[in-house]
Amino acid sequence: MDPFPTSPPDQTPEEEIAREVGLWRPFTQAVRDLVDASVLTAVDEDEIRAAQAEIEQIVSRLRKEQLSETLGMTHRPNGRRRPWGNPVIGVRNPIAPPLVVRTEATGRAESDFHCGAAYEGPPGLVHGGVVSLLLDQMLGQAVGAGGRPGMTGTLTIVYRTGTPLGDLRCEAWIERHDEVKTWAKGHIIGPDGVTAEAEGVFILPRWVRERMAAAAAGEDVPPVPGLRIFE
Amino acid sequence: MDPFPTSPPDQTPEEEIAREVGLWRPFTQAVRDLVDASVLTAVDEDEIRAAQAEIEQIVSRLRKEQLSETLGMTHRPNGRRRPWGNPVIGVRNPIAPPLVVRTEATGRAESDFHCGAAYEGPPGLVHGGVVSLLLDQMLGQAVGAGGRPGMTGTLTIVYRTGTPLGDLRCEAWIERHDEVKTWAKGHIIGPDGVTAEAEGVFILPRWVRERMAAAAAGEDVPPVPGLRIFE
Repeated sequence: MDPFPTSPPDQTPEEEIAREVGLWRPFTQAVRDLVDASVLTAVDEDEIRAAQAEIEQIVSRLRKEQLSETLGMTHRPNGRRRPWGNPVIGVRNPIAPPLVVRTEATGRAESDFHCGAAYEGPPGLVHGGVVSLLLDQMLGQAVGAGGRPGMTGTLTIVYRTGTPLGDLRCEAWIERHDEVKTWAKGHIIGPDGVTAEAEGVFILPRWVRERMAAAAAGEDVPPVPGLRIFE
Repeated sequence: MDPFPTSPPDQTPEEEIAREVGLWRPFTQAVRDLVDASVLTAVDEDEIRAAQAEIEQIVSRLRKEQLSETLGMTHRPNGRRRPWGNPVIGVRNPIAPPLVVRTEATGRAESDFHCGAAYEGPPGLVHGGVVSLLLDQMLGQAVGAGGRPGMTGTLTIVYRTGTPLGDLRCEAWIERHDEVKTWAKGHIIGPDGVTAEAEGVFILPRWVRERMAAAAAGEDVPPVPGLRIFE
């Protein structure tokens, strides 16, 4: 959650973005299904080897033309953020479960999602590090939604009990903030209640702090959509 | 890092395990390459749709026979642990970079690894939650290697600076322990030094604590390989 002001604004029309999502979402879901099938399959070795050869073929075709920079580098700052490569929410990232996040401008984020076999740590449970991955993202979403985006400064996870694989819910919200830091909390909820709690400190990116300093010095700082600090 | 005593010991001979690794490692690497190609490809839409259709075909073939339980549930406790589904180190998990971990019985773990575009959070940087995922695993490896396995109780990450995508190193070690808890620390090192630090508290699993209580009560508790507590 760190909009960078150096990228040019994304001028892509809504319909074009919707069309691109319509292309990438099912493709990425197919790769995600392949990841899941990979950790669960019990077919015989010949079938595994045949699948491998076909996958290698597909990879070499997909690699014929590649982006000159990562998806994150083409990240758009101005109300049109497209974090498609994000490993938690990215519509183009097969590693992402993906979480579909609902946010509120009060600084709140929530998501109902599913964690399958590829996210397993202890038997039948979500890997503790995956729990922290999801919570870091969700706390970041909450502070971003609240108009106080930032890089994670510190993150603390308290594991109350194992988080079972399956359908889960994550909630995050802003607790408080000072000029530069925002404190957020969140938790993951399984079928039997809260399994893990998080607290994070997020630090406003330097370009935001520079604009704040410029505004304080009386300079005319134009508002940035979604960034309530200058409103 | 939580060996469960309920699974039967893995009787598979070494050569058979090596053969299975020889099958799964290149297959999983092909899927991992596909994940990477998915977030980086710039081929045209027809090619994406064609690849999707072929991937869906492969998935349905792999799903014809599936394991009756997740890989974690078939996890082996007795010195023959096979965490093949683990999302950080699993030889059968395409989500895992994967980390190849060297451990020392003093309670130390280290790994040199690569994080590509699929792990990106802020532009050009590893997602902060991925940083915590890797550190959680590595701290768990350190306490396990030190003969004090455990479930993560709390995990705190301090982000010193962004962790650049690319070649990285992670180190973790046991700091101290009391009867039930083990404190571990670790960090990730990029080309310019430490980027993030972690501290975690790991709690001995219940079955270990029960054996400890039994031993304290004078019962004859047989040693468990790799678990130095009863030696």
